[in-house]
Amino acid sequence: MSHPLFTPEITLMLAEANAAGLREFCESLHPATVAEALDSEFTPEQIWEVISHANIRTQASIFEYIPPALQVEMAEKARPQMGQLLTKMSHDDRVDLLKRLPGRVAESVMRLVDEADRKDIATLFSYGENTVGAMMTTDYAWLPATATAAEAIDQLRAQAPDKETIYYVYVLDDASRRSDGSLAPRRLLGVISLRDLILAPRHALVRELMETDLATLRYDQDKDAVAQLFARYDFIAAPVVDDSFGLLGIVTHDDVLDLVQREATADLQRQAGVGPITGTYLDASFWMVWKSRAFWLGALFVLQMGTINVMAHFESDLERVAYLMVFVPLCLSVGGNAGSQAATLVIRALALEEIRTRDWLLVFRRELLMAAALAAGLGVLSIVRTYFFTPESVLAKLPPGFFWNLNWAITFSVMGICLCGAVIGAMLPLAIKSFGQDPALMSTPFIATLSDVLGIIIFFNFVKLFFF
Amino acid sequence: MSHPLFTPEITLMLAEANAAGLREFCESLHPATVAEALDSEFTPEQIWEVISHANIRTQASIFEYIPPALQVEMAEKARPQMGQLLTKMSHDDRVDLLKRLPGRVAESVMRLVDEADRKDIATLFSYGENTVGAMMTTDYAWLPATATAAEAIDQLRAQAPDKETIYYVYVLDDASRRSDGSLAPRRLLGVISLRDLILAPRHALVRELMETDLATLRYDQDKDAVAQLFARYDFIAAPVVDDSFGLLGIVTHDDVLDLVQREATADLQRQAGVGPITGTYLDASFWMVWKSRAFWLGALFVLQMGTINVMAHFESDLERVAYLMVFVPLCLSVGGNAGSQAATLVIRALALEEIRTRDWLLVFRRELLMAAALAAGLGVLSIVRTYFFTPESVLAKLPPGFFWNLNWAITFSVMGICLCGAVIGAMLPLAIKSFGQDPALMSTPFIATLSDVLGIIIFFNFVKLFFF
Repeated sequence: MSHPLFTPEITLMLAEANAAGLREFCESLHPATVAEALDSEFTPEQIWEVISHANIRTQASIFEYIPPALQVEMAEKARPQMGQLLTKMSHDDRVDLLKRLPGRVAESVMRLVDEADRKDIATLFSYGENTVGAMMTTDYAWLPATATAAEAIDQLRAQAPDKETIYYVYVLDDASRRSDGSLAPRRLLGVISLRDLILAPRHALVRELMETDLATLRYDQDKDAVAQLFARYDFIAAPVVDDSFGLLGIVTHDDVLDLVQREATADLQRQAGVGPITGTYLDASFWMVWKSRAFWLGALFVLQMGTINVMAHFESDLERVAYLMVFVPLCLSVGGNAGSQAATLVIRALALEEIRTRDWLLVFRRELLMAAALAAGLGVLSIVRTYFFTPESVLAKLPPGFFWNLNWAITFSVMGICLCGAVIGAMLPLAIKSFGQDPALMSTPFIATLSDVLGIIIFFNFVKLFFF
Repeated sequence: MSHPLFTPEITLMLAEANAAGLREFCESLHPATVAEALDSEFTPEQIWEVISHANIRTQASIFEYIPPALQVEMAEKARPQMGQLLTKMSHDDRVDLLKRLPGRVAESVMRLVDEADRKDIATLFSYGENTVGAMMTTDYAWLPATATAAEAIDQLRAQAPDKETIYYVYVLDDASRRSDGSLAPRRLLGVISLRDLILAPRHALVRELMETDLATLRYDQDKDAVAQLFARYDFIAAPVVDDSFGLLGIVTHDDVLDLVQREATADLQRQAGVGPITGTYLDASFWMVWKSRAFWLGALFVLQMGTINVMAHFESDLERVAYLMVFVPLCLSVGGNAGSQAATLVIRALALEEIRTRDWLLVFRRELLMAAALAAGLGVLSIVRTYFFTPESVLAKLPPGFFWNLNWAITFSVMGICLCGAVIGAMLPLAIKSFGQDPALMSTPFIATLSDVLGIIIFFNFVKLFFF
C-alpha cells in the first residue's frame, strides 16, 4: 500500500492546466488515495481545481474521503460546486457535512439542491445524535417482491450508480398512506443478497428467494446496539425500520467500523479521565484538550481533598507513630490498582453486553472471591516485604516488641484495601448503569480517588488496632 | 432483532424426531440465530442431532457461529461429522477450530479431509500468530484477465457457493512455476467488484474493467495494519500477497470488526493493568483472571515499595513537620491522574498511527505546554483550597507566620507533580515504542506508581524549601 508522492506531479499539472492529466489522476486511483494525496499539501481552491476535471461522481467519492475540517473549508470556498456535489454524495456523508457547516453556508448550499434531496437531507437531519437514525443512509437498493431474479438484476443495474451498496437488496411492500394522507415508508418484507440473486434461476420470484428472518435496527435505538448486531451477524449492511416496520434506511459496515474505532478511543480516554476529544492527537485544539483534561483533573483534585480531612482526623491521634506514614502511599496504591482492574473489566463487559445490571449479584460474588484471592497474594508479598525490607529509620522508632504489630498492621491494611477497592470498582459501574448513566463515567482515577479515602480509614484503623 | 425463545419447540421436535421441523428450523433462520438458540440450552450431542437435518453447507454456517469452546466439545464428540463439515467451512474458521482442538482430535479429524483441503489447512496453519496471514482466508473468488463481463458472471455463479465473498473478485495472472519447479501463487493483477461487473457491457474485458491501483496487505505484516487499511478504504475485503505479489488469500470486513473489538478490549484491560484475558467476563476461568490481575498488582506493589524508602529518607529530616504528611495523598494523586491522561492519549494516537516515535519532540513540546496550563489551573485550585479549607488541627501545629509557606509548599508541589506526571506519561510510551515494545505496557497504574515516587521527592523538597 505504499503510494508514490504525488505532490510534484500534481503541482506541475496544475501549473500547466493539464486537464487530461488531472482527470486521469482522479479517475485511475482509489478516491481515498486521491484525497490523501491532496489533503495536506494543497489549498481548498487547488483541490477544487484538481478534482473539477473528474466525473461528478468521482468528485463526490474523493470529497467524501477528505478530512471533515477541510471539507468545511472547501464548501465555504465554492458553494455552487458544493451544491452539485451534494446530489451525488452518500446520503449519510452529506448530512454529516451539512451539520458541520456554519448555518448561512449550509443554507446557501441547500438552495442549490433539488427538492427530493432537500427532503431526504431534512429527514436524516432530524434524528437524535447517538441514535441509529443519525448513522444511517437512505440510498439503499430495493425491489418489489413480485420481480423475478432476472428482472431484479436489471433493476439493480439501473439503481447501482446511486446506491451505497447493492450487495444487500431490500424487498419492500407496496406504498401505503398514513391516516393523514401522507406516504408512509414502505414496509420491509425481506432481504436478498446479490449473491443469492445471481445464483437463483432467472424466473424465480424475489418473494420466494428472500430471507424473511430479519435482524433489524430501530431508528431511535442507541448507536451502541449497531456494533453488537454487526459483530454477531457479519453483515455488510443492516436495515433500519420505524414502528410499523417501514424501511427508513440502512447502516453499512464501513460506518460501523468507524464507530467501533471511535468508541474504543472514547472509552480509553474516559477510562483515563479525559473528556471527549475530537480530532487527532496533534490536530485537536489545545484549549479543547485542556478543558477536557482540566475538568477531570480539577474534579478529582477536589474529591481527593477529602483525604486531607480524613488524614488530619487520624493524625492528631497518631502523632507518636507518625513514622508509620511512610507506608501510606503503598497501601493506598493497592486500592486504586485493584479498583481500576475491576472497574475496567465490568465496564467493558457491560459495553459488550456480556453482563447486564441484573447480574450484579453474580458480579459481586465473583469480585469478592477474586478480591479475596488477590488480597491473599498481596498479603504474602506484604509480609515478606515488611519482614525483610523495613527501612532502618522506621525500625529505630518502633517501640520494642512491636515488629510483628507493624507487619500485621501493614498486611491487613493492604488486604483490606485491596478487597474494598476491587469490590467498589466492580459495583460502582453497575450502580451508575442502573441509574441509566454511562458506566464508563467511573473512570480509573475516579475509582482510585474514592478508594484512597476509604484506604486511609482502613489503614489508620489497623494501625490503631495493632499499636494502641 | 428480538427472537422468540426456541428451546421448548426444539426440545419437542427432538423428542418426536421431527426431521422436517428441525430442517425447517435450521434452514429458514439466519445461522447466527440458530447457533444462538442452540448454544446455551443443548448438549453437543443434541446440537449435532438438530443440525444434522440441514444441508451440509447450512450445518457449516451454523457451526461457524457456535462459541469456540462449544465447537471444540462438538468436534470431540463426533469426529466423522466434523471431518465432513470441515470441507464446507470457511477456510479461516476451520483453521481457527483446528488450532483449538487437542492434538489427537485434530489429527483424527484431519484424516477425513481430502488432500487439497489438507494442504490449504497446513498453509494457513503455518502463518505466525498476530500476522495478517493468520487472519486471512483462502476461499476467495478469482478470474483470469481475459474473461468478458458476461463470462465473469457465469464463472462467479459457479464459484459462489464455496467462496467467502464474491463481491470483490481478484484478477490473477497465469500460473507460473518457481525455480524449484513448484507452482507459485498466481500474481495479482487487479480487482473488480461485482457491482462493476454487473454495470459493465457484456463483452467488456475484465482486463479493462479491473482496478489496478491496489491496496494490499503482506502475509507477514502485523495484524494492526489491517484495521487502519479497512478504516481508510471502507473495504469489504482486502487481498494478501507474498513478496512477488502472488495472491495468498483475503481478509474480510467481519474479521476486521472482530479484531477491532477484541483489540479495544485488550487495550482497555492493559491500560488498567490487567493481563490478556480470553473469554467473556463471566465465562473466563477464575484462576486465569486471577493470574493476569495478580501479576500486575504484585508487580506494581513491589515497584510502589520504592515510596517507602523515599519517604523514610525524608521522614527523619521532617519529623517536626509530620503534620504536613496529611497532604501527601492529595499531591501524589495529581501526578497519577495527569500522567494517565497523557499516557492514554499518546498510546491511542500511536495505535491509530496519528503520531510516530519520530514525532517525540512535537509530543514533548505539546505535553509540556499542556502540563503547564493544567498545572496553572490546579495551582489556583490549590491556593483556594489551602487558604480556605486547611483543617484546624494542621493550622494549630503550624509555626506562627508560616501560613503562606504552607500554601506555597502545597501549591508548588501540586504544580510540579502535575508537570512531571504528564511529561512522563507522554514520553514513556514513546520510549517503549522506540525500543520495539508495545507502548500499551505503560499502563495507567504503572505511570501512577512511577509518578508517586517522583511526587514524594518533589513534595518533600518544596516542604524543605518553605519550612527550613
